[in-house]
Amino acid sequence: MARPVILFSGGWADLPLGELAPQAAEWGYQGLDLACWGDHLEVQRALSEDDYAPAKLALLAGLELTAPVVSCHRVSQAVCDPIDERHQDLLPDYVWGDGDPAGVRRRAAEEVVASARAAQKLGAAVLGGFSGSPVWSAVAGYPPPRPARLADALREFARAWRPILDACQECGLRYALEIHPGQIAFDLYSAEAALDALDGRPEFGFTLDPSHLHWIGVDPVEFVRRFPDRIFHVHIKDCVVRLNGRTSLFCSYLPYGDARRGWDVRSPGRGGVDWEAVIRALNEAGYDGALAVEWRDPGMSREYGAEEACRFVKRLDFEPAPPRDGGPAFR
Amino acid sequence: MARPVILFSGGWADLPLGELAPQAAEWGYQGLDLACWGDHLEVQRALSEDDYAPAKLALLAGLELTAPVVSCHRVSQAVCDPIDERHQDLLPDYVWGDGDPAGVRRRAAEEVVASARAAQKLGAAVLGGFSGSPVWSAVAGYPPPRPARLADALREFARAWRPILDACQECGLRYALEIHPGQIAFDLYSAEAALDALDGRPEFGFTLDPSHLHWIGVDPVEFVRRFPDRIFHVHIKDCVVRLNGRTSLFCSYLPYGDARRGWDVRSPGRGGVDWEAVIRALNEAGYDGALAVEWRDPGMSREYGAEEACRFVKRLDFEPAPPRDGGPAFR
Amino acid sequence: MARPVILFSGGWADLPLGELAPQAAEWGYQGLDLACWGDHLEVQRALSEDDYAPAKLALLAGLELTAPVVSCHRVSQAVCDPIDERHQDLLPDYVWGDGDPAGVRRRAAEEVVASARAAQKLGAAVLGGFSGSPVWSAVAGYPPPRPARLADALREFARAWRPILDACQECGLRYALEIHPGQIAFDLYSAEAALDALDGRPEFGFTLDPSHLHWIGVDPVEFVRRFPDRIFHVHIKDCVVRLNGRTSLFCSYLPYGDARRGWDVRSPGRGGVDWEAVIRALNEAGYDGALAVEWRDPGMSREYGAEEACRFVKRLDFEPAPPRDGGPAFR
Amino acid sequence: MARPVILFSGGWADLPLGELAPQAAEWGYQGLDLACWGDHLEVQRALSEDDYAPAKLALLAGLELTAPVVSCHRVSQAVCDPIDERHQDLLPDYVWGDGDPAGVRRRAAEEVVASARAAQKLGAAVLGGFSGSPVWSAVAGYPPPRPARLADALREFARAWRPILDACQECGLRYALEIHPGQIAFDLYSAEAALDALDGRPEFGFTLDPSHLHWIGVDPVEFVRRFPDRIFHVHIKDCVVRLNGRTSLFCSYLPYGDARRGWDVRSPGRGGVDWEAVIRALNEAGYDGALAVEWRDPGMSREYGAEEACRFVKRLDFEPAPPRDGGPAFR
Amino acid sequence: MARPVILFSGGWADLPLGELAPQAAEWGYQGLDLACWGDHLEVQRALSEDDYAPAKLALLAGLELTAPVVSCHRVSQAVCDPIDERHQDLLPDYVWGDGDPAGVRRRAAEEVVASARAAQKLGAAVLGGFSGSPVWSAVAGYPPPRPARLADALREFARAWRPILDACQECGLRYALEIHPGQIAFDLYSAEAALDALDGRPEFGFTLDPSHLHWIGVDPVEFVRRFPDRIFHVHIKDCVVRLNGRTSLFCSYLPYGDARRGWDVRSPGRGGVDWEAVIRALNEAGYDGALAVEWRDPGMSREYGAEEACRFVKRLDFEPAPPRDGGPAFR
Amino acid sequence: MARPVILFSGGWADLPLGELAPQAAEWGYQGLDLACWGDHLEVQRALSEDDYAPAKLALLAGLELTAPVVSCHRVSQAVCDPIDERHQDLLPDYVWGDGDPAGVRRRAAEEVVASARAAQKLGAAVLGGFSGSPVWSAVAGYPPPRPARLADALREFARAWRPILDACQECGLRYALEIHPGQIAFDLYSAEAALDALDGRPEFGFTLDPSHLHWIGVDPVEFVRRFPDRIFHVHIKDCVVRLNGRTSLFCSYLPYGDARRGWDVRSPGRGGVDWEAVIRALNEAGYDGALAVEWRDPGMSREYGAEEACRFVKRLDFEPAPPRDGGPAFR
Repeated sequence: MARPVILFSGGWADLPLGELAPQAAEWGYQGLDLACWGDHLEVQRALSEDDYAPAKLALLAGLELTAPVVSCHRVSQAVCDPIDERHQDLLPDYVWGDGDPAGVRRRAAEEVVASARAAQKLGAAVLGGFSGSPVWSAVAGYPPPRPARLADALREFARAWRPILDACQECGLRYALEIHPGQIAFDLYSAEAALDALDGRPEFGFTLDPSHLHWIGVDPVEFVRRFPDRIFHVHIKDCVVRLNGRTSLFCSYLPYGDARRGWDVRSPGRGGVDWEAVIRALNEAGYDGALAVEWRDPGMSREYGAEEACRFVKRLDFEPAPPRDGGPAFR
Repeated sequence: MARPVILFSGGWADLPLGELAPQAAEWGYQGLDLACWGDHLEVQRALSEDDYAPAKLALLAGLELTAPVVSCHRVSQAVCDPIDERHQDLLPDYVWGDGDPAGVRRRAAEEVVASARAAQKLGAAVLGGFSGSPVWSAVAGYPPPRPARLADALREFARAWRPILDACQECGLRYALEIHPGQIAFDLYSAEAALDALDGRPEFGFTLDPSHLHWIGVDPVEFVRRFPDRIFHVHIKDCVVRLNGRTSLFCSYLPYGDARRGWDVRSPGRGGVDWEAVIRALNEAGYDGALAVEWRDPGMSREYGAEEACRFVKRLDFEPAPPRDGGPAFR
Repeated sequence: MARPVILFSGGWADLPLGELAPQAAEWGYQGLDLACWGDHLEVQRALSEDDYAPAKLALLAGLELTAPVVSCHRVSQAVCDPIDERHQDLLPDYVWGDGDPAGVRRRAAEEVVASARAAQKLGAAVLGGFSGSPVWSAVAGYPPPRPARLADALREFARAWRPILDACQECGLRYALEIHPGQIAFDLYSAEAALDALDGRPEFGFTLDPSHLHWIGVDPVEFVRRFPDRIFHVHIKDCVVRLNGRTSLFCSYLPYGDARRGWDVRSPGRGGVDWEAVIRALNEAGYDGALAVEWRDPGMSREYGAEEACRFVKRLDFEPAPPRDGGPAFR
Repeated sequence: MARPVILFSGGWADLPLGELAPQAAEWGYQGLDLACWGDHLEVQRALSEDDYAPAKLALLAGLELTAPVVSCHRVSQAVCDPIDERHQDLLPDYVWGDGDPAGVRRRAAEEVVASARAAQKLGAAVLGGFSGSPVWSAVAGYPPPRPARLADALREFARAWRPILDACQECGLRYALEIHPGQIAFDLYSAEAALDALDGRPEFGFTLDPSHLHWIGVDPVEFVRRFPDRIFHVHIKDCVVRLNGRTSLFCSYLPYGDARRGWDVRSPGRGGVDWEAVIRALNEAGYDGALAVEWRDPGMSREYGAEEACRFVKRLDFEPAPPRDGGPAFR
Repeated sequence: MARPVILFSGGWADLPLGELAPQAAEWGYQGLDLACWGDHLEVQRALSEDDYAPAKLALLAGLELTAPVVSCHRVSQAVCDPIDERHQDLLPDYVWGDGDPAGVRRRAAEEVVASARAAQKLGAAVLGGFSGSPVWSAVAGYPPPRPARLADALREFARAWRPILDACQECGLRYALEIHPGQIAFDLYSAEAALDALDGRPEFGFTLDPSHLHWIGVDPVEFVRRFPDRIFHVHIKDCVVRLNGRTSLFCSYLPYGDARRGWDVRSPGRGGVDWEAVIRALNEAGYDGALAVEWRDPGMSREYGAEEACRFVKRLDFEPAPPRDGGPAFR
Repeated sequence: MARPVILFSGGWADLPLGELAPQAAEWGYQGLDLACWGDHLEVQRALSEDDYAPAKLALLAGLELTAPVVSCHRVSQAVCDPIDERHQDLLPDYVWGDGDPAGVRRRAAEEVVASARAAQKLGAAVLGGFSGSPVWSAVAGYPPPRPARLADALREFARAWRPILDACQECGLRYALEIHPGQIAFDLYSAEAALDALDGRPEFGFTLDPSHLHWIGVDPVEFVRRFPDRIFHVHIKDCVVRLNGRTSLFCSYLPYGDARRGWDVRSPGRGGVDWEAVIRALNEAGYDGALAVEWRDPGMSREYGAEEACRFVKRLDFEPAPPRDGGPAFR
């Protein structure tokens, strides 16, 4: 399919966009999923400086790159999270402020709205990101929440995100929540719950990143089939499960790349995701957005990996059949 | 092996001990792992009323039941947890108090010490329970903690638990932390970390409950082999994993018993735990403590289940070989 | 659960009921699923002779056996099948008549109606059986049918069965179509199609026999979850798949019991069906009908097997949990 | 091995050969397995018009294509099938005639003989096709046939096919029956039965299409090893099995490409067939005929797929070891 | 089936028969497979003392035990082995003599003949044992043998064993070579080779012990099907494979019971052998000999185990179907 | 990684080096692992003729090939093996001499020392080879050795190899014992034992050939993790396990390439080894030596295979990540 194969810039924010973009083009990418951190997309500058967005677009256009998606994972995490010191690492100073939780959450929500407006200026159609969650610590832990607490949390999530989705609607954007641990939606049935909490409003859908589903046992194909018209964005990242009796799926506080973890991230095609099945499910669902490589593999050089990943995704994305007719051949 | 097969009373705290104990005896149990909630073991009364503990012991003795283990899961959870409203459900009022986190934690620690003294009065050798964890929400979630935060958390855990272990030592008790989500130790390598944080002091070991290891991929056999002399107590509870592409190991906020969960608890022998291998590993490790059925199965009548579980464990616990000689037979 | 464990008499029609029933009682069964062939239930006599049904009931009652289900598999097969010489073996002479297909089908439908009336006289609540299928040969074969042919076939099925279901309604019976190769419904989605063809009328549901689902890859648990209120009857029969590269699921024209088959039937508990999961699914669905052993195992003595099967099913059918409350114990 | 990689033209009969052949050559194919339908090989014209066959050969030769195999699946299906309206879709009008079953079967047999003569004119060495089957509906269905009926059916098959094989012998051709549902031989042991029914006459062998064996559990490697000198032709088509508890191997009347089917066809290398093992088995059997891609994949553009399939098969078909000597190296 | 369930006495030779036999009877055994070592069956005394065999038989008869099989594994090992110091542990002094290999082999062969005569005196029908092997070290090791060496070895084996089989024939005995590592036949195809080397003489067959086949990947069912009329004896012993990436099937010089081994022996029903399939294969093959428990499990008390094994085998050995008729029931 | 991809010349010793080397270069290899047999490296000539080694090096240099490893498998096998006629095939006449075992072993040890000196002249850093084993026949066979015999054997091994390792040390070489059946170390725990027997002296380590570990169940990844600083050399050879119930891991005396074997060797990438995991483990261990293709595949042309193997290994050996920093990206 003629889907653009793009690179998610989030993992390269240590490089200025001016360095990253030419490399991405050389590796074969057709565009970027632009992160709102580093200098890739500085939201406040994009809103306040008239030539900021045009300059970014010009830089990309000169390399024949597009920017169909903008991503605000870091700041969106704080929108309905219980705030603690970990968020300080993720947020710009002007969002963190004095670190008072309620204020942080409010400013984070405002920054996501600002990100939507910046994305509009770049001509993007999708804003990708996280949601945070008031009840993440209850998901697999102890003590369990009272049932009423879960219902409250979903209402809290909806209350926090409705104004942001209103802004997306105004900007002609759709918000693609990444199904990911730590978010309000992290598997199939929790995605149902989140969608219900928002009464299924059309601006709200998902970023499918099969790596986050793989190790918790969800088949990304089933996810696509359950929400065929809510897949707004796709991250291509792989994941390997390597249980040997001692390793665990909770990974024992160990960092990525440690051999004692029960799972790890991998360059696309080198893990356990069944990409052949994923691409067919996307074809069946009529998904025609970008395929964004989110490159991460603690054992491989990232330049080497980003290039092979681009080739991998282009080979993966075969030309689907035209709409079904009566069926071919001697049958 | 002549290990006592006992019933963990925690799941029956809605019944007075005077009702539960005769049933347990009738079902075939040889003792109880007594919970410090409900009226099973009221810690403050046990310490303040001279005839409290003797009366409990007399009740049990009359049924030919022993009480080799006392359990304080609920209150121990609060010792080093970030405190929120969920803990109120777990704690006696005099521990919860005004709910201020630091105070709750302090009073919880005092209550665990009191539980140790109460256990001593009952003649128990093991105090089982939880630990709480300052960093549970970082285990499988997002955002990740800074590395230094993990080290701090382990120190925090050790600081909070050392005085409790001192008390255990005085009482001639060993503390058996249950390897369980939400605790400082929840898999093999995190158990190593917890043990290291306490410099391996001899009063500290683990309650092995294979059900909590099964669904995260840890083989309970490997756990026993890694810590052969730190298995202080064993809970017999089963677990079934039933991934079908839509269910997930995070269980989507769904309660036990919901068919859309990726795993669930089961009456012993009706799930996926390889009990044959577990009992052999315990034999090899020389474990000679009790086997405590923690009965839980959302699909089965608990009376029916508790009885079949007792029979199951007695059949499971075969007579091991005498210490290895040169080997028998025609070999 | 206090579900009756009964024996399907169809495989014992070489014995008069007067011989079979005492044996069944001795083996531990609590009732029979009475076949309308052999002398077990002679439909025309039951309708024409006033004392026929009472005499059968008296025979059973004397042995403390019930007859909650009547089965008409043989004659129901002919209701919408293309008729050939194989049906002659299945049908009474007065139904086969001259063997002209249209006449056979008409007389078969009349006989099923008669069977419903006979069942009513016995006080049964469920009539079990087959349906036949106008398009079975198209299911896995070649040439494939035109799409329109499939739609026609479903309409044909509905046309033939509506009058029979009307009769069932009059008699206060429900018809339980066994999901089985050769019938209009043989797997999950074909069962959906059959139910739709009949506009979901309430007299129509299914006999679940996990053995027929097992070797074609359908999980009986998923079937129960898809149709929780349409499971009208359950056959307990097991099935083993033993593919070794040479055997096939189509079984190469070989009879049951031949080691070169890719699958075979087995005494309950000795094949591959996950009965633990099946009984839990039935519990969740609230199924409270009978569990009828359809004993078949080409490698085992049928008397030996029928007795062990009765014990197996009684052990299987544990007492389920009372309706879910907030959940027990220290959680 | 220098085996020709060719394209089976049956699935492209909507295109005139004059269009298909140049495309096939461009995609890299070295020849065609020519179907006797569409205008690819019109049997009666080939026999009656002297320049018909030479013109076809000239067209192919101009593209450096060969035609080592001719295929008559459609008409051969009717040779010993019970005839119904589905066959009308498969047959030329002059074979269908008035549709009277006996006449259709007779004319179909004559047309297969004519196809053999046409194949001879093209210089082909193999005629590929089907057989039909008098007892297909008994293979996995109900009611089962009487045992004697199976024996009759095999005799019937042999009686119908002997004259055709005589004609093949005269034409210097071998007949390659495709192992396929709906035919007299559809798995390993039924292939044995068919071969026995024909007393193993040398003109009769098989077309191996691993896709038809894969989903019924037969290992194509075992098939090749059982009949090493009867593999007359090979179709390269892949198959994916995707059972999830709800899908079934009987596919619920659903067309290819529907996600609710339990198996589906796939472009070579994108399904579950172990091609590495298949090619080695063919090498060991000394098979030196063509490898004919029968391209079918409901999810992929057929042009895209046909090209990638050609590359796939060329890569697959490695150069085998020379006849075994004493063995190499330091061993 | 009414097959006798007996105990192989080889693993209990540290007990006098007078102690073992009453225990075996009490555990439920119906007979013994008598080992020719310890005092169970002293071959030379049985031949030279007229009342020796009658006294043994009287001892057994008094306990209602039979002795249908006699076993000579230890001495038979030396018949065609390269002799080294390990054999000294296995052999009586008068067979070992001066330890000169050729002499040891000759005397071992004579002792096996003597064992046959002793077995005859006891009324046994089967003599079980080993063979030794001139080429065992070449089976999985390095350097490999020249091909001619293999042929020589098989001839050597046949030359050594023919006179013994002559003696068996005279005594009305069949020799049951146990398929076992270290013997001339250790898997399916080597068993074929051994049988061929002896021109298939009827006195020569096999002892099936599934445990030795399990860990090398041979399905005991396939073995029985390949040699249905050569299964002369059956040992019931179980085996567990527990590969975890570090353990190996060669077991690293580690003794039975060491957790670092890749496989180990187990009490019947507690390992990986599919006994349900084995007993059906024996039924199909018409095997009507004894089922001899060879009890070995390094983790279990042998008394405890021998009793549970007896119960296990009796439950396993169900009553098979009568010879196949046309098939029962509504089919 | 910039590891050299080289070809182990052992399997090509029928070709003079002057023929093999240019081919290897053309196939893409960057060097050779030179075998001390054929004319590839004639040890005695290398020591006695001053221009021998320089001429070899010149030949290689002219093709831009290196020789970082020299291999002496054949002669090293005899160092502590029980000697029989199989060794005569492996050894030069001057080592075999009169074939008296003690003399053969002594001369073999001297020749390994000579090989080390020859390797030094070639500038190699690693000498690869075998060890032989006094107790191989006891590994999986019968009778088992007395425990003391195992300890003796390890001492015997150490005694025989210490002088050779002294010579390696003098020559600046490390000895890389290939983990392989027939050697003192053949799996993980036996490798531990061998290393211990030599008190872990630094000249002694291993050649990792995953193919020898794969079929006995050892994960090469676990092996690398156990001995990260003892992997001195790597052979790239693949292995397929194909158990079907009849084949066995002991392979029934059948030669490589026979379809009845339970496992076989394969061209790299065409078997069951998880190379992705192997290369990552080598990266993690910091292995920076050569990757030597030991090409062996009984079903493939060796020229075809050697070329595809070179491409395979170059693709496999991706550029690893730089030493771990705090971790990239939006995490």
